[in-house]
Amino acid sequence: AIRDAVLAFFLRAARENGPLSGLRALVTAGPTHEPLDPVRYLANRSSGRQGYAIAQALAALGADVTLVSGPVTLAAPAAIRLVRCETAQEMQAHVMQALPCDVAVCTAAVADWRPETEASQKIKKTADMRAPALTLVPNPDILAQLCGHATARPGLVIGFAAETETVEAHAQAKRLRKGCDWLVANDVSPQTGIMGGEENEVLLITPDGTETWPRMSKQEVAAQLAERVARWWSARPARPL
Amino acid sequence: AIRDAVLAFFLRAARENGPLSGLRALVTAGPTHEPLDPVRYLANRSSGRQGYAIAQALAALGADVTLVSGPVTLAAPAAIRLVRCETAQEMQAHVMQALPCDVAVCTAAVADWRPETEASQKIKKTADMRAPALTLVPNPDILAQLCGHATARPGLVIGFAAETETVEAHAQAKRLRKGCDWLVANDVSPQTGIMGGEENEVLLITPDGTETWPRMSKQEVAAQLAERVARWWSARPARPL
Repeated sequence: AIRDAVLAFFLRAARENGPLSGLRALVTAGPTHEPLDPVRYLANRSSGRQGYAIAQALAALGADVTLVSGPVTLAAPAAIRLVRCETAQEMQAHVMQALPCDVAVCTAAVADWRPETEASQKIKKTADMRAPALTLVPNPDILAQLCGHATARPGLVIGFAAETETVEAHAQAKRLRKGCDWLVANDVSPQTGIMGGEENEVLLITPDGTETWPRMSKQEVAAQLAERVARWWSARPARPL
Repeated sequence: AIRDAVLAFFLRAARENGPLSGLRALVTAGPTHEPLDPVRYLANRSSGRQGYAIAQALAALGADVTLVSGPVTLAAPAAIRLVRCETAQEMQAHVMQALPCDVAVCTAAVADWRPETEASQKIKKTADMRAPALTLVPNPDILAQLCGHATARPGLVIGFAAETETVEAHAQAKRLRKGCDWLVANDVSPQTGIMGGEENEVLLITPDGTETWPRMSKQEVAAQLAERVARWWSARPARPL
């Protein structure tokens, strides 16, 4: 409890005098779950750890943070507006409601597809054991929508790419395709232990080129990214009065 | 640490003198995850709570318990052989390895189907956003295999049925179809809060008929079921020498 009070004190001080004071940040994190029926769903292995760490690192520098989170087992961080959701469509709605903001960091592993229909009752096995037809349809592309927003595009949009092969080429193509400013790419092949793990090893792709960051904890990645956001924020053009 | 030592003491005492001393129990718990590719999978909302509670209740009465668990966020219980796995096929292999046993309690929500193929790399979105074809194939039926085992059928096989409608009729049909001795059925419709929750409200279906148990904690359901197993165990015919 004392620890919480001390933390709250520093977060309040940062909110007033930190390098990100006045900055409104939106962070998405975690997987989305896409239901087939009341008990079954499509999921992915995102733990939400990197996104939660980034939300906390931005708040520690004084940002006003909204964290839109898919289903994860992490505790709600202090001094952050946490909005929980389950599906990509719910996440899209919450992200759009969180606009306007200055920075959007889209770490969530949003499901690319969802089952076309959600059965209202549990799908039963049939006597002949034939499997149900499972038709997938594309989910909304939240990152592309943020980047292309006509009236409220955030000043800085940072995308994430989880790849398992030819990481840099895929990630550079994704940055251009989505229209985001920076893109953080990582290799989530099972042997890396990154997805769901405590560490990350990322590439930061900006219009200036690709930086290769060494393997470090997700907290350290978050702290360094928040520093970069602070550099961007301090160099921003003055807002029109 | 003192609490753990006291618990270990009582579990050792029970193992020697409890009503289930000498009984070998196999419990399955949790969901299974069925991968589409290195990051995506099919899942279900089982938390594993009821199965873990049953494993603990049986151990508390002196049983020698093997718990085969799908991916859950629960801690490993004390004094229980815990075997973790992810897919239905892995669970099947671990269950068969755990035979022979006297009692099998199959609480796991084993996925009925899995993707026909698991892609070795993350499936990429295509430019035209067409969704990948997802063909499902049936998983092994672990409960039916246990019940029909030619040489090592457990003396008592208890199945579970998670239903969302016409629970009793579905469950009675399932008991006969699988060939299990008892079947515990519950209504996992989202509005009941049972799947993933702390409480359960079950029907116990035996050859003698259907009992309706009131809503209670999953620990209490486990304790009552373990008592019933103890009654069965004390009334068992003597083993051939």
